[in-house]
Amino acid sequence: MAEILVVGSVGYDSITTPSGHKDNLLGGSANYFSLAASKYSKVNVVGVVGDDYKKKDIELLTSRNVCVSGLQTLEGETFRWTGKYENDMNEAITLDTQLNVFQHFNPQIPDQYKNSGYVFLANIDPVLQMQVLGQVEKPKLVGVDTMNFWIESKLDDLKKVLSKVDVLLINEGEARELTGLWNGIGAAKVLSEMGPRAIVIKRGEYGFVLYMDGQYFILPAFPVEKVIDPTGAGDTFAGGFFGYLSKVDGDFEMAHLKQACVHGCILASYTVQDFGVNPLIDLSWKDLEARQSEYSQVISYR
Amino acid sequence: MAEILVVGSVGYDSITTPSGHKDNLLGGSANYFSLAASKYSKVNVVGVVGDDYKKKDIELLTSRNVCVSGLQTLEGETFRWTGKYENDMNEAITLDTQLNVFQHFNPQIPDQYKNSGYVFLANIDPVLQMQVLGQVEKPKLVGVDTMNFWIESKLDDLKKVLSKVDVLLINEGEARELTGLWNGIGAAKVLSEMGPRAIVIKRGEYGFVLYMDGQYFILPAFPVEKVIDPTGAGDTFAGGFFGYLSKVDGDFEMAHLKQACVHGCILASYTVQDFGVNPLIDLSWKDLEARQSEYSQVISYR
Repeated sequence: MAEILVVGSVGYDSITTPSGHKDNLLGGSANYFSLAASKYSKVNVVGVVGDDYKKKDIELLTSRNVCVSGLQTLEGETFRWTGKYENDMNEAITLDTQLNVFQHFNPQIPDQYKNSGYVFLANIDPVLQMQVLGQVEKPKLVGVDTMNFWIESKLDDLKKVLSKVDVLLINEGEARELTGLWNGIGAAKVLSEMGPRAIVIKRGEYGFVLYMDGQYFILPAFPVEKVIDPTGAGDTFAGGFFGYLSKVDGDFEMAHLKQACVHGCILASYTVQDFGVNPLIDLSWKDLEARQSEYSQVISYR
Repeated sequence: MAEILVVGSVGYDSITTPSGHKDNLLGGSANYFSLAASKYSKVNVVGVVGDDYKKKDIELLTSRNVCVSGLQTLEGETFRWTGKYENDMNEAITLDTQLNVFQHFNPQIPDQYKNSGYVFLANIDPVLQMQVLGQVEKPKLVGVDTMNFWIESKLDDLKKVLSKVDVLLINEGEARELTGLWNGIGAAKVLSEMGPRAIVIKRGEYGFVLYMDGQYFILPAFPVEKVIDPTGAGDTFAGGFFGYLSKVDGDFEMAHLKQACVHGCILASYTVQDFGVNPLIDLSWKDLEARQSEYSQVISYR
């Protein structure tokens, strides 16, 4: 079992979906990722919060096998995102983004994090992602996420990052934007030529596409009859994916990556069932195993 | 092995996709369905063509285990559809529809077709679908397809048909329109309450959802790197689905329906690889078996 380093956003979200509205939910990619990944291995978080960040939200992580030594507190307010979903739960509509202290984020990797075997660079400025890569010591596997904002504003920096990492986890819409290809199957191949040996395209309710070494692994999401809030599903997926890989800590091969995707998929199916990180907090291994067995039925025909 | 009756459109299509443009392609739901289903069982077609319909297009069916005694020829022109696809291959944009003789279609089921064990009512006026149901003798399984036009213009008639059939095969967009639910998982359940014991939601490149007796079976499409023309993929799916079921001719149970969906899915993956019905014509069992084995790899993780 190896440790996982995640560098990403930490903040509060206000979210409206067809199921309702919630203000000031604990959010940010690093929170979703950590709560998922820490079910498997120790997680080391690097991020930044303002002095308004609640103590209980820090304690939520520390009580769950997550080290927060790398969480800087700066004077000012914490990052806040306001968004909504209309019918299409695969597409978030941003209403307001207040970067606050996040605009001064300068990721510093604490010494004790530097030999984390697994590194996930969540969706932040690719220039910062590259700075992180300069500070870690030969991780076994590095994964990266990104978003349309960076594809449009810092494509060259993003391409440098892609040339240095092992796995790209990306939404289907962003895969389209980055490759110019609508078809996720064709896009995965082109993305792989940009550097990452493995590509995971996240398709929301349609599941995921994993592509590596000319092979595809594709499955739908676990069927959820009523999606309440899809925020964080992609980061939860990444958490389950890296969690599983770090726990097994085996070779970089398709069989492990397939399992990792299934773990990510199962965890993400909980995230969408309620607002914010709530569904992840008290999720047990027993729950996860039961759902994995149900999932296996849903996709099996022999 | 039982015979299959299909009632649907027969016509010529002019199609533009990002890969090119083709005029006067053989098309129509009954043609796609028959070419797929006849790989498994004898297919009986009921449809209507004009006196411009080409002899070779009839011969294509008769050379392939399809009976065309139910194909009426009326004075006038054959049904023609002109459409295009832009980026999203899941959505056809209709540019022109010339119903021609199709607007006088009054399906008459020849006596020798009346005890076909399997009946597929492709996307036609629900009033005509009901007329067909009045003419057949206790088929073992009846399936139906429909489209937004009938949902908007003849909802009451469509609901009557739904209350009489065993399986509804429908596009995801149309499932949304019929239920008011965006989520295909929730929609399947609601559709089943309208009558059909089994619901198959066709999701294009994202595959399908089968729902029956409270159970889901969900898989992605076979990965095709370059989709040339998705026209007819849904009818091909239905052809593979009914073809398999009629060949096995077993009980109406989940295990058979799961296999039927996989067969539909594999056949449809060929249809999208070229314009029109071409990819189905010379497709061999050997091809199908090889692709089914490849598909099994794509979706397996144990």
